Amino acid sequence: MGKDAFGLAAKDNSGVLSPFRFSRRETGEKDVRFKVLFCGICHSDLHMIKNGWGVSTYPLVPGHEIVGVVTEVGSKVTKFKTGDKVGVGCMVGSCGSCESCTEGLENYCPKMIQTYGFKDYDDTITYGGYSNNMVCDEDFIIRIPDNLPLDAAAPLLCAGITVYSPLKYHGLDEPGMHIGVVGLGGLGHVAVKFAKAMGLKVTVISTSDRKRDEAINRLGADAFVVSRDQKQVKDAMRTLDGIINTVSATHSLLPLLGLLKPKGKLIMVGAPEKPLELPVMPLIAERKMVTGSLIGGIKDTQEMMDMAGKHNITADIELISADYVNTAMERLEKADVRYRFVIDVANTLKPTP
Amino acid sequence: MGKDAFGLAAKDNSGVLSPFRFSRRETGEKDVRFKVLFCGICHSDLHMIKNGWGVSTYPLVPGHEIVGVVTEVGSKVTKFKTGDKVGVGCMVGSCGSCESCTEGLENYCPKMIQTYGFKDYDDTITYGGYSNNMVCDEDFIIRIPDNLPLDAAAPLLCAGITVYSPLKYHGLDEPGMHIGVVGLGGLGHVAVKFAKAMGLKVTVISTSDRKRDEAINRLGADAFVVSRDQKQVKDAMRTLDGIINTVSATHSLLPLLGLLKPKGKLIMVGAPEKPLELPVMPLIAERKMVTGSLIGGIKDTQEMMDMAGKHNITADIELISADYVNTAMERLEKADVRYRFVIDVANTLKPTP
Repeated sequence: MGKDAFGLAAKDNSGVLSPFRFSRRETGEKDVRFKVLFCGICHSDLHMIKNGWGVSTYPLVPGHEIVGVVTEVGSKVTKFKTGDKVGVGCMVGSCGSCESCTEGLENYCPKMIQTYGFKDYDDTITYGGYSNNMVCDEDFIIRIPDNLPLDAAAPLLCAGITVYSPLKYHGLDEPGMHIGVVGLGGLGHVAVKFAKAMGLKVTVISTSDRKRDEAINRLGADAFVVSRDQKQVKDAMRTLDGIINTVSATHSLLPLLGLLKPKGKLIMVGAPEKPLELPVMPLIAERKMVTGSLIGGIKDTQEMMDMAGKHNITADIELISADYVNTAMERLEKADVRYRFVIDVANTLKPTP
Repeated sequence: MGKDAFGLAAKDNSGVLSPFRFSRRETGEKDVRFKVLFCGICHSDLHMIKNGWGVSTYPLVPGHEIVGVVTEVGSKVTKFKTGDKVGVGCMVGSCGSCESCTEGLENYCPKMIQTYGFKDYDDTITYGGYSNNMVCDEDFIIRIPDNLPLDAAAPLLCAGITVYSPLKYHGLDEPGMHIGVVGLGGLGHVAVKFAKAMGLKVTVISTSDRKRDEAINRLGADAFVVSRDQKQVKDAMRTLDGIINTVSATHSLLPLLGLLKPKGKLIMVGAPEKPLELPVMPLIAERKMVTGSLIGGIKDTQEMMDMAGKHNITADIELISADYVNTAMERLEKADVRYRFVIDVANTLKPTP
């Protein structure tokens, strides 16, 4: 059984998305069903449709920055009602009983169920938000603050929590601290916004000078350092308490480690496919640290979203129609977007014949 | 002016030590002067005499695991008196006012003065413990507990504090925790002893099975994993709260990261000359961390030494005469020592003609 749904799916690793008809489960007693209004395009969607990490199964309906309006709730749902504005991020389930789950870190649960391309509780494969409707346990539903535009809020469900969570976990959210943000893309531009809202000093680090004006004058960063310019790096040595590194291309960690104060933390949120070169001496000589972070737990995600509401933080987006998605993927591959594509699902996704 | 001293020095980067006569400053009002009884040979001495890090100046008198008996104290010395058993480790001075110094972490002070081959306060070059006497500000003198044999206690001043400090700093010293020790050499064998005294479970990690018996039956480790044996690594996956990595040769971090629990800490105390390959996914997926640590502060060093006294912890040493030092260096290069050479300075170092 189940309910009809339609969307856009990759049928193989060619990178092309095409119409797809499928079914989603009936609304269970703890489920929230919602009409999808908007869905962001994350860089990992591009990776997944092309099987870049070698874990994709087809047909694959991407999308884990999903917002919409509740259309139906199960009999035991307590937190949401029809008409609520809600969202789903990168996960739709977890074991609920492991150490990570107990700590509200479902994102690190070994049995965490990703929003698409993963085996769900009922052994069906999960389908993401490039589709007309969504159903999910209420424990994985995020409430979207009323004042936020839903299209520009969608990317916060992945990009927002990915940068918010490590800032908080590593104690880098205290006003007056100074952080660096490497890479001014989908994650990076949101990182600047949250960091400024937290009262931090922010230095954007990029391989070229191209985004300096944008970073400082539009996003409100305090400084800009070109990582390939030795003088600029030298002048900013030992100034940062932490760095959020969003870059997934192969790159040098040495200048980044140099920018950290002693005991500073380099936090990887972009996932390079190949190992990076790690110079060990800076770690030893000044107790610097390289670590990583993966999205965030549901509690933190709601907290992030509420903070976004309070400070009017959204992603800078380019709203596209569903039939533009393959072009958008080509542009995304070339980093030709400022800073996130969001699909206008409800208005432009046509029912699959 | 100054007082005559004699010792063994490298005169160039050939790796050969030969007799050397020099002078040390008079005993200042805050200085402690002591007769050197024993001095350990640290692997970094070998690096330094050959200018392996490119920072050596000659003549260079190595040695930073120095113990002896106080012969003279300055008028303002309050903590030591003639006849006391004392030691000096890797540093003999620091600025005293920076953030690190204020926290008792003189080892991370940017103006920290190393025990040998460094510019001292008075612009003279510091000379290490391969010599007949030593003079040092009392704030950098460590008291050696009465019950410890001085020769086997000497290596604790470098090897001991190097492994003790990160265990404590990273909260890996709580009874019941499970740590790994990579490399069973001068640092590693002392790490096992301190970890066991702290009540930890200890797994020794090595590239071959050769030291299994030694690690478990003599040093008291709980388990042994051969890092090149995929089955052994797989069976021990996600079991360790932290790892003390003493290896300075180029090696793979991937199996080590696999052995860590989520949020586990890989702590580098060996310093590879070239960058290591860092796989980023394990850091992101489970918030694992790679960091480093450099010896330790004076307060921690005394605390470590007192703990060694309480638990009868010393290094396993091979006591050598001064005229064996060049042979010892050759053997050290081949890792042919269990586990530390210590020079019997007072009994065998002959006055330089």
